[in-house]
Amino acid sequence: MSGAADRPEIPPEEVERVFRKLDEEAESAGYHLNPDTTFTLGLIEGMLVNERRYGYWACPCRLASGRKSEDLDIICPCDYRDADLSEYGACFCALYVSQDVKDGKRKARRIPERRPAEKASAAEEPAAEGPAQGGAAGPAENTPARSGSAPARAETPAGSAPAGAADLKYPVWRCKVCGYLCARDGPPEVCPICKAKKERFERFL
Amino acid sequence: MSGAADRPEIPPEEVERVFRKLDEEAESAGYHLNPDTTFTLGLIEGMLVNERRYGYWACPCRLASGRKSEDLDIICPCDYRDADLSEYGACFCALYVSQDVKDGKRKARRIPERRPAEKASAAEEPAAEGPAQGGAAGPAENTPARSGSAPARAETPAGSAPAGAADLKYPVWRCKVCGYLCARDGPPEVCPICKAKKERFERFL
Amino acid sequence: MSGAADRPEIPPEEVERVFRKLDEEAESAGYHLNPDTTFTLGLIEGMLVNERRYGYWACPCRLASGRKSEDLDIICPCDYRDADLSEYGACFCALYVSQDVKDGKRKARRIPERRPAEKASAAEEPAAEGPAQGGAAGPAENTPARSGSAPARAETPAGSAPAGAADLKYPVWRCKVCGYLCARDGPPEVCPICKAKKERFERFL
Repeated sequence: MSGAADRPEIPPEEVERVFRKLDEEAESAGYHLNPDTTFTLGLIEGMLVNERRYGYWACPCRLASGRKSEDLDIICPCDYRDADLSEYGACFCALYVSQDVKDGKRKARRIPERRPAEKASAAEEPAAEGPAQGGAAGPAENTPARSGSAPARAETPAGSAPAGAADLKYPVWRCKVCGYLCARDGPPEVCPICKAKKERFERFL
Repeated sequence: MSGAADRPEIPPEEVERVFRKLDEEAESAGYHLNPDTTFTLGLIEGMLVNERRYGYWACPCRLASGRKSEDLDIICPCDYRDADLSEYGACFCALYVSQDVKDGKRKARRIPERRPAEKASAAEEPAAEGPAQGGAAGPAENTPARSGSAPARAETPAGSAPAGAADLKYPVWRCKVCGYLCARDGPPEVCPICKAKKERFERFL
Repeated sequence: MSGAADRPEIPPEEVERVFRKLDEEAESAGYHLNPDTTFTLGLIEGMLVNERRYGYWACPCRLASGRKSEDLDIICPCDYRDADLSEYGACFCALYVSQDVKDGKRKARRIPERRPAEKASAAEEPAAEGPAQGGAAGPAENTPARSGSAPARAETPAGSAPAGAADLKYPVWRCKVCGYLCARDGPPEVCPICKAKKERFERFL
């Protein structure tokens, strides 16, 4: 198990730099980092700790196996982010939040683990401890248990794609404004191309 | 009917801020705002007036019903923008123009209303008066009647998608350079991902 | 053949301006210009020479026919860039390189011409001479013969799409993180929308 002693030191400048890059990329594609900057910097630091340990950005709020091939789905941004953003207004970590939550119009709710339990139980190594400040910062209701505790909250069957069209794994959504196509459980909050809102999408396939 | 008296005041700084945001988003996705800045700021002010009145960015050049569910297709950018950009070099309002028009190589033509007449006639409330300066600014030929007058120019059947492949509502276009896919009447002016021009697209489905 | 005498002069400021624009567009979509700036500026100058001559950005490392309709596939970025980036870490010119090559973790290899030989042989006019400094700059191993020499290295059948699904010309890839769809030989290095890496893509159609 990893204690504070063997936690790699991440230079604050590096955390800041990654924060700015992620923030820019998020905004340009219609995503938003948690506006609680202290909280967000803590999560990013956790990811960078994981990068040092495992060689990839394992989610700072989940147990990583340390084997990349098994952790692909929880490399940040994780495969579950967008579904959680749609349903709960935040990803599992609350690193990413929806526009409503960012604007304070909606409070992020406690987020059940969407990752299939089988996958989570394959993790043998503890993940980074998460934000340096422990679990205190950020939107409290939305902050999952951290600090090495296993996310044993697989309350939803989740992860599994909905039936979708005939033999498609996911339904395809079309932005009525610009024609952008994407395949996911539901349309994105905002079209990453033309910034039209979710309500402007239609089921295409 | 709304007169000048009940027109909400929009702080110039807010108009400027929204202008910069829209301009940045447009350019990063291969779209262009009308380079006549005075005209463009007037249209954006009209949208912000509509936002105050209705709660959403109803097109400043059309009559809004005031009921969001009925006006979804004319929330800016409207569902008709891209088709008008392809065919006429500008959207109905001339808020967005094509590269050619922006560069002055082509003059925007008068644009017939592409929105189905049934939809337009559902509007019961007048839209914002549009640019504060009246209809004087901008590419004149391209400037639709504003100031509360109904756009009674539904000259095209429009709005209706072309037949397309088998049972697809729109044909799917593929950028030969980067593989980007979109479903729309015709390919976009510029690939929003790699900036390749329209001529580099092929019909995919 | 075109000599130095009739090579159009391109103002350095124009080369610089185009460089900055291309660099910004590349980075925002997950592509990277060759970090050897001198080399890259030389290639861009070659493209601008071609623009003056032919009216379009013919690839500075290939023979252009001077007829746009026949050269569409080699207008930069060319139709072969992304496949070469995936396979060799650089496009034919090495104007664009992969993240690994940019970071110096991988050396770009010599790139065989992916353009079908029939297309190349249709070229009757010599292309621009390429970088002013000749072929000296840039990642040497990756620098194709320039200066008007025909790229007679069509070692791969290339250009032809793989079988793909049923009657699709290209397989469709889906980003598991954001649902982005694209149709190409293989997934992109990085999702242009959410920046997830290639390994996070799955075959969708």
